[in-house]
Amino acid sequence: MVAEILSVGTELLMGQIANTDAQYLSRRLSELGVALYRHTTVGDNPARVKAAIAEGLSRADIVITTGGLGPTEDDLTKEMVGEFFGLPMELHDESLAAIEERMRRIGREMTENNRKQAYFPRGAAVMPNFQGTAPGCIVESGGKAVAVLPGPPRELIDMFERQLAPYLRERSGAHIESRFLRIFGVGESMVETKLIDLFHSGNPTLALYCSPGEVTARISARVEPGADAAGMIAPLEEEIRRRLGNAVYAEGIDASLSKAVLSLLTARNETVAFAESCTGGRLIASMVDCPGASAAVVEGRVVYANAAKERALGVRRETLAAFGAVSPECAVEMAEGVRKISGAAWALSTTGVAGPSGGTAEKPVGLVYVGVAGPTGARAEKFQFRGDRDWVRTLACQNALNLLRLELEKS
Amino acid sequence: MVAEILSVGTELLMGQIANTDAQYLSRRLSELGVALYRHTTVGDNPARVKAAIAEGLSRADIVITTGGLGPTEDDLTKEMVGEFFGLPMELHDESLAAIEERMRRIGREMTENNRKQAYFPRGAAVMPNFQGTAPGCIVESGGKAVAVLPGPPRELIDMFERQLAPYLRERSGAHIESRFLRIFGVGESMVETKLIDLFHSGNPTLALYCSPGEVTARISARVEPGADAAGMIAPLEEEIRRRLGNAVYAEGIDASLSKAVLSLLTARNETVAFAESCTGGRLIASMVDCPGASAAVVEGRVVYANAAKERALGVRRETLAAFGAVSPECAVEMAEGVRKISGAAWALSTTGVAGPSGGTAEKPVGLVYVGVAGPTGARAEKFQFRGDRDWVRTLACQNALNLLRLELEKS
Repeated sequence: MVAEILSVGTELLMGQIANTDAQYLSRRLSELGVALYRHTTVGDNPARVKAAIAEGLSRADIVITTGGLGPTEDDLTKEMVGEFFGLPMELHDESLAAIEERMRRIGREMTENNRKQAYFPRGAAVMPNFQGTAPGCIVESGGKAVAVLPGPPRELIDMFERQLAPYLRERSGAHIESRFLRIFGVGESMVETKLIDLFHSGNPTLALYCSPGEVTARISARVEPGADAAGMIAPLEEEIRRRLGNAVYAEGIDASLSKAVLSLLTARNETVAFAESCTGGRLIASMVDCPGASAAVVEGRVVYANAAKERALGVRRETLAAFGAVSPECAVEMAEGVRKISGAAWALSTTGVAGPSGGTAEKPVGLVYVGVAGPTGARAEKFQFRGDRDWVRTLACQNALNLLRLELEKS
Repeated sequence: MVAEILSVGTELLMGQIANTDAQYLSRRLSELGVALYRHTTVGDNPARVKAAIAEGLSRADIVITTGGLGPTEDDLTKEMVGEFFGLPMELHDESLAAIEERMRRIGREMTENNRKQAYFPRGAAVMPNFQGTAPGCIVESGGKAVAVLPGPPRELIDMFERQLAPYLRERSGAHIESRFLRIFGVGESMVETKLIDLFHSGNPTLALYCSPGEVTARISARVEPGADAAGMIAPLEEEIRRRLGNAVYAEGIDASLSKAVLSLLTARNETVAFAESCTGGRLIASMVDCPGASAAVVEGRVVYANAAKERALGVRRETLAAFGAVSPECAVEMAEGVRKISGAAWALSTTGVAGPSGGTAEKPVGLVYVGVAGPTGARAEKFQFRGDRDWVRTLACQNALNLLRLELEKS
């Protein structure tokens, strides 16, 4: 079964909102095994809506529309579906009663415009709206179908899950199951090079995605009813893990380096502290973002000025004088300092030149030292990042977390 | 001038990410006075990309593509633009040198795949990528054009603003000029009530936008060539400022509370320190996010545990015993403590129940005290936020910054 999504709404073309409805539907269609090859967005314009329905149905079995079901005269998605199929609009008594009941309950006056929301193309299967006013519908004709959903996300999600998903599930045989391997420290093209022969493996398929500083490998299996999804995915996953080694830091779409570090620490009942210069609090903030952080995160000190590095972390003045604040020596003393002060088992430190100014030939913008201190000693690692202030600091945080992750995994 | 957006990426059709690129471009095209009637999204499929380019150009003067410029063999947007216009792909030496230089700088091996990123349809105007690897381009032929942008938002935004926006501005007649008044501490409906008679003022127009915790009032003037944009906007801006008073904290789409605080501090040559519990480093991180932060930000201490509050900030054990960590008394001692330790002129502290667990009847989830200490003393303010952990911490940061802003403005 092949579907397309048609989003209707001038607010999307104005950029006032992101099209999260299309994202939600895309993810769910993929999970339901419905093929999706295109999204289209048009404004509240009758001719363009009708043309887009026609184009969509020339390629797909079903077009799923979102939006354009409101009470105003701009809202005309249903009307255009009717026109396209040559079906007159007819009053749906149950919907009218439901809309009147809802208006009464929320204390709004029923207007003539609201009556319009109870009209549907003849023969449509009406989908009641349990979260709002405008019902949706499914119109079938000549082996093709259009499903009409409301735009507000809570209404759309509720209607999709209760009413449209069962309809699609019945008509789609197989579904798609995916696993997401999260990769850090190896660039996209290197990952591809290492996995090149695995990309055209049929079923399951392999695809790579980039997010800031990271790569995700998605393994997707098309699973026929009764088939063993886990068994289909496992061999490919094992092969990828074998080739990429500990660059694979976690599994799951919601995984993150900070969550991975937190779970390694809590599993060992150990704690961590942070001494941050160029990352300015972002490193500890990314850890505290994870629920349960208080079990492992003891303390952080953000020491932006040299005087603060001495006072708050015990970095020696001679170290700063001899090597400067952006140096492996300073990074090590920062990490050791906060580890000692806090009593944490582990400590991470960052010191670098985030930019835009402050760079020199010897210490250019993007130079960052990450210090890691633990039960068996401390060391610093050098990084040279390229990009603006925000990007340098993002990469500094990720690489610091990854350094601690690797230490924890090997110790 | 009529444009269409063509987003290329299977990850969009899988619903892994929302199409924020399309939203960004839509908003900016609208501001530039470029008409936009359609977004289309297709996967990394050559035939579908090519067909979508052809369809877009049958309706529009320019198609702006996003994505599909990566190094992998799936990435083929440029190639399809070339095929559509009948132009062979040619190596662009400058781009190859830039890619090689970038790979060398970030310490990644240059692969054959990366070379592909330096090929463009013959005659294309190449747009260098200052934020990543893949350059974009503009290809013109037969009165039509395709502009090819990378998918990663930071790369797309930088390339659009520096290179494509000027190209479009030159070709679009009248343009839209906007000013953005940033408002904090007054809800959207209250702002609307106070400005209600100003919304239908013709040219310039007024619109309100909500972002987390804030409201932005956009004043947009449609400016014919040679007209005085500033003179068109000023009277409406003055009237809004008169009605909203000090709730307007800054002007500009890039403004933020942390930038406003930083600029107030640097103007007075004063400094600030932070003591954070529930905000976990986010408060100081938001300050350090601003270029030039080192002039005013001295130090931050993230004290998640009670013992750390005593050790790192000198909060008295009796205070914690009598009132608890989430109390105005503790907030005041935290702010005073970090102010004294750091020698900063000002200090902000946060302590609260961010959730999801840890709430009680007396101190429910969302209760946050913000402490502010300055040359004339210290005080705490109580907030009761509603929402999840992330939202409570976001609002706590914003309200803390706003508290300091108001102190600085009045003193």
